[in-house]
Amino acid sequence: MAKHTTLYQHGTLALLVPGLLKGTMTMGDLLKHGDTGIGTGEGLDGELIILNGKPYQVAADGKVNVVPDSFTMPFANIHYARYLPLAELENVSQDDLNEQIVSLSKAGNTFFSVKITGTFSDVKTRAVRKSEPPFHTLAQTARNQSIFTRDKVDGTLIGYYSPELFDGAAVAGFHHHFLADDRKFGGHVLDFHLDKGEVSYQLFDTFEQHLPVNDKRYMQHDFSSDDITESIHTAE
Amino acid sequence: MAKHTTLYQHGTLALLVPGLLKGTMTMGDLLKHGDTGIGTGEGLDGELIILNGKPYQVAADGKVNVVPDSFTMPFANIHYARYLPLAELENVSQDDLNEQIVSLSKAGNTFFSVKITGTFSDVKTRAVRKSEPPFHTLAQTARNQSIFTRDKVDGTLIGYYSPELFDGAAVAGFHHHFLADDRKFGGHVLDFHLDKGEVSYQLFDTFEQHLPVNDKRYMQHDFSSDDITESIHTAE
Repeated sequence: MAKHTTLYQHGTLALLVPGLLKGTMTMGDLLKHGDTGIGTGEGLDGELIILNGKPYQVAADGKVNVVPDSFTMPFANIHYARYLPLAELENVSQDDLNEQIVSLSKAGNTFFSVKITGTFSDVKTRAVRKSEPPFHTLAQTARNQSIFTRDKVDGTLIGYYSPELFDGAAVAGFHHHFLADDRKFGGHVLDFHLDKGEVSYQLFDTFEQHLPVNDKRYMQHDFSSDDITESIHTAE
Repeated sequence: MAKHTTLYQHGTLALLVPGLLKGTMTMGDLLKHGDTGIGTGEGLDGELIILNGKPYQVAADGKVNVVPDSFTMPFANIHYARYLPLAELENVSQDDLNEQIVSLSKAGNTFFSVKITGTFSDVKTRAVRKSEPPFHTLAQTARNQSIFTRDKVDGTLIGYYSPELFDGAAVAGFHHHFLADDRKFGGHVLDFHLDKGEVSYQLFDTFEQHLPVNDKRYMQHDFSSDDITESIHTAE
């Protein structure tokens, strides 16, 4: 198995929409599928970023915690890092950067990851506050979020790109999480400006979609009345 | 790796729609991911069914061939068989059977395979005639198909069920191929009546989607103007 060309995903974004927010995989089990990734905890408990096998959580109080192997998640992406240099860029907005990455990588029809290290400015992130059962919908739960901003910060951005065809299973386009080098700031990225940084990417030929088949609420849920893609794009 | 709970798929149905029909994986490589499956050859060259590791092709001339390891495909599903008994049924139509399978298995929100062995009547199948490059669209290519029927036949049906959410990557709902015990009849199933048979199923928690990232025409194709789901459901 060419592990470096596989993106593993536990859960689908679609199951978050109606509020199937139970943690259905432990961090210990997730880390058997990679060393780099992003995700969220049970009840949308913060924003996760995994770097070099170490799982960080940016909680709704803004604190950055390292989570234990027993921490559970309804949704996560992970892979074994082997990034290739793509570009060294200066003074670009998030939208410009995303466009340049798709154009340079020529990988818009497959899954890939992007890693950006450097100096960022006007970084805006969010972290959702953990909700308790009975869970509400994604849209309702995501309203309880904190927004964090930094004028200038050194750090690492990990993102995943999913092709349009898989919208619903994943967010079509980019999904970025950030962690500051000082481990005091991070979260799900809403906006940023890259002052200067190294952009690398890793292309996948395999998308390994793992579903929580042992979760009865998931298996019995009627998805036909959920407006999956609209809800995802509103919340994300 | 729990191999028996993984469904491997090479290609996506969506790439067939605009006519990306090049064979991008060999049968030899496909068989590294399972012993049971379905698929089609380059240029929609017939209908494939893999039983006990042996790959049969029902060609447009109606003949059943065993294909070599060098045979290439744009699309295929494969897994390692470990079916569980679901029901022994008599005198049911295809639609009734499909409904009963989803109801009994309670697996409608995940991928699963179904295997039916027994006596069938009024079986109607099709096999597409291989087209040569430059390939036309799925709808145009699939017009060159042969329809075969049998009043009464003993055989094996292999089907895959995909949840609605993954429509486009796979056919949402069931996709059945058939092979007669005498190896003289088979193909993509359009209709059948089950006189008497054993129905077994195999549930997957993992959908391993492999994409032809080394095929430049695939990677450079603009899917935004293809009406993916409508074309698939017209052709399938």
